[in-house]
Amino acid sequence: MATAQTRPKDPVVEALRTLLGERLSTSSAVREQHGHDESYHPGHPPDAVAFAESTEEVAEIVKICAHHERPVIAFGTGTSLEGHVAALHGGISIDTSRMNQVIEVNSEDLDCRVEAGVTRKQLNQYLHDTGLFFPIDPGADASLGGMTATRASGTNAVRYGTMRENVLGLTVVMADGRIIRTGGRARKSAAGYDLTRLLVGSEGTLGVITEIQLRLYGIPEAMSAAVCAFESLEGAVNTVIATIQIGIPVARIELLDEVQMDAINRYAKFDYPVLPTLFFEFHGTERGVAEQVEMVGEIAGELGGSDFQWAHKPEERSKLWQARHDAYYANIALRPGAKAWASDVCVPISRLADCILETKRDIEESDLLAPIVGHVGDGNFHLSFVIDPDDPAEMARAEALNDRMVMRALAMGGTCTGEHGIGTGKMKFLQAEHGEAVGVMRQIKLALDPGNIMNPGKIVQV
Amino acid sequence: MATAQTRPKDPVVEALRTLLGERLSTSSAVREQHGHDESYHPGHPPDAVAFAESTEEVAEIVKICAHHERPVIAFGTGTSLEGHVAALHGGISIDTSRMNQVIEVNSEDLDCRVEAGVTRKQLNQYLHDTGLFFPIDPGADASLGGMTATRASGTNAVRYGTMRENVLGLTVVMADGRIIRTGGRARKSAAGYDLTRLLVGSEGTLGVITEIQLRLYGIPEAMSAAVCAFESLEGAVNTVIATIQIGIPVARIELLDEVQMDAINRYAKFDYPVLPTLFFEFHGTERGVAEQVEMVGEIAGELGGSDFQWAHKPEERSKLWQARHDAYYANIALRPGAKAWASDVCVPISRLADCILETKRDIEESDLLAPIVGHVGDGNFHLSFVIDPDDPAEMARAEALNDRMVMRALAMGGTCTGEHGIGTGKMKFLQAEHGEAVGVMRQIKLALDPGNIMNPGKIVQV
Repeated sequence: MATAQTRPKDPVVEALRTLLGERLSTSSAVREQHGHDESYHPGHPPDAVAFAESTEEVAEIVKICAHHERPVIAFGTGTSLEGHVAALHGGISIDTSRMNQVIEVNSEDLDCRVEAGVTRKQLNQYLHDTGLFFPIDPGADASLGGMTATRASGTNAVRYGTMRENVLGLTVVMADGRIIRTGGRARKSAAGYDLTRLLVGSEGTLGVITEIQLRLYGIPEAMSAAVCAFESLEGAVNTVIATIQIGIPVARIELLDEVQMDAINRYAKFDYPVLPTLFFEFHGTERGVAEQVEMVGEIAGELGGSDFQWAHKPEERSKLWQARHDAYYANIALRPGAKAWASDVCVPISRLADCILETKRDIEESDLLAPIVGHVGDGNFHLSFVIDPDDPAEMARAEALNDRMVMRALAMGGTCTGEHGIGTGKMKFLQAEHGEAVGVMRQIKLALDPGNIMNPGKIVQV
Repeated sequence: MATAQTRPKDPVVEALRTLLGERLSTSSAVREQHGHDESYHPGHPPDAVAFAESTEEVAEIVKICAHHERPVIAFGTGTSLEGHVAALHGGISIDTSRMNQVIEVNSEDLDCRVEAGVTRKQLNQYLHDTGLFFPIDPGADASLGGMTATRASGTNAVRYGTMRENVLGLTVVMADGRIIRTGGRARKSAAGYDLTRLLVGSEGTLGVITEIQLRLYGIPEAMSAAVCAFESLEGAVNTVIATIQIGIPVARIELLDEVQMDAINRYAKFDYPVLPTLFFEFHGTERGVAEQVEMVGEIAGELGGSDFQWAHKPEERSKLWQARHDAYYANIALRPGAKAWASDVCVPISRLADCILETKRDIEESDLLAPIVGHVGDGNFHLSFVIDPDDPAEMARAEALNDRMVMRALAMGGTCTGEHGIGTGKMKFLQAEHGEAVGVMRQIKLALDPGNIMNPGKIVQV
């Protein structure tokens, strides 16, 4: 593959080099790295990578690209899972990693403003002495810009919501280089169209997010985590359903099937029972947590749950949740050389047991290795195919199984993706899920990006 | 004013009469009633009122209007407050009051689907035996379609969120008559642009909402309400701020100033102290409520709050909250023949005391009668000018005071409206609040409604 250096006088590269100097890279390695995410989806390197340092600089980059009708792909940490950052039609990757300042923390108002390149762990580190935290935690230490763009969630969403509920406002560079500010710091507003929520989850196809105003939360007085193994997957799932339906405000309630528990034990040297397992976390006052624990314990006991293994100390809880967050990497380690294809769906909670159990039967009838793990309090679960992308037959079987899982979720009133996004990987399901509404998405895309330069080929084809 | 009947052969009216028969009205009284809301804003009657009975019928009406480039204004209960339903350029009012079916209640999933004309009280009546409730409660018994269109909230928003957080999906008739379904029943989704939230709060300018999928909540095991008077407004507001900052999950925390308390006493024959007062409600388990009560009691006591007057029984609580909900009507009753001009702003909670106290000083320095009441847990408060709209000097003074309050809220990082919406009344502030982003709103409006037939003249001018 020819590198951009060998192309004579690419006017976009020339103009960006003048603007950014050494902060524009056309090296093969840098381009390759920015052309793929953590998924099995094939990479497409951009023509160059621009390391922007400010909103104004992003605006200048976009203006240059707009002038030359060259694609613009925003890049955070490259930890997305549906091919979001692949430069399908070439173009310029805007790397936001140098935009990593926490701009302000308003402790009294429980909010903060960050540049797009700040990662979730960096933010929580920064908040360390304030008594506040930011709860949204996809497995990876993703950038908050990327998490906003993909409407990320994670284990805490059952209590604290997703990026949809926790982004108060944005600074965004639109396709013509205009800089807009959406939303604000008020907790609610009825002032005009909700551009903030339109842009959250737009995956870089409507604009480049450069700053985010986020909700924060006080660290609860008391937190306890627990692990509880079940004889059957059904018992575990029904425990989740009963907990949610009764309205117990659990902070986290995660399901890992026995295949996933085995992977975690091997990867992180745990010795959990190799059984379907729930990971819980409870937040509140001392008395409130005690009450939640008691109620959930009763439910789990009735449904075949073993005694709870408790983690009360912060370091025990960290270890437990790190094990959960490492699930993706633990799965890849199960089969050296393999890649993971993580697909997620989300269904109404009353259908969760059916959806998981039918999917589990599908897996058992296939020869595929595919642990199940999920943020089941939301009705959201993941299948991680551990797979050889170079084996077309295996890929075809996985694709067929994934298709069945997604169509099953849609038939149950669910969605084709609870938190990973559409990217390129789920585009074929968007029409099945949203029908005529996809036409409206396309109208909005064309209105705001008539040249189709913002991350083209993702979410909707125009 | 000429009635539509006297106009020879209005082709839209003729076509709609063929479609709807007697469910199309051109009578003066019906048109007048549909041309104004509950505010002081001048009414503009539509050319005719169509009483639709189904989504498909709304689509047919919109297609006829689109063909003739005639405005379409959706009408729920007419209880909006910023001139939302005025037919500024004539056109057809689509009255949704006959679309009043609760389509489904999914108790296990805590959601339901309703037609747009179902009112909030009707829904809660319907849910009576299910153990579930829908919490969003603007003062009026508004239609859920109208509440969605204006992104309504109310007293429970501090705990349960606004319509933004509680609408899961929609059926909408777009400007060309297409019927789309947005969102779904899953608790979260990362599948494409969030059209649901774009349409929530779009005030009928992008489409007519015909069905709404809503979140429901289990009725808490324990509920207690209380009234607490304060020597100073500052003490009351600071009690709110401390309560929110500590993270006590109050269900309701409402402020009424002494002028408002006086109005309520007179209107509903109460004998509350004529002092700045907080109305509280606590939801949870028996133990959880007891704990919240204890914590809030301590805070209020330190800040000059009197002993709490408790309402534990459902009928006592209903009476207390009815008094609060009647504030608007109580204010009008203070001055026979007057109208109320209710304006609302919302600020970050740390600025709430400053914003309310400065506004209060403004009121005291004017000769205006303007009680203050607010959903202060969100940083949201209302000013109700009790005013004679036919007195230009008085109106000018009120307008100047309102301008100052809104610009003060914006300077504090707040919004020009927390829950009433833009309509026509707040259009002049939208640019001040959102700047360049208003241009993006306009692009979206033009893309989805190129003929500008959907409630024209509201939110943005195109």
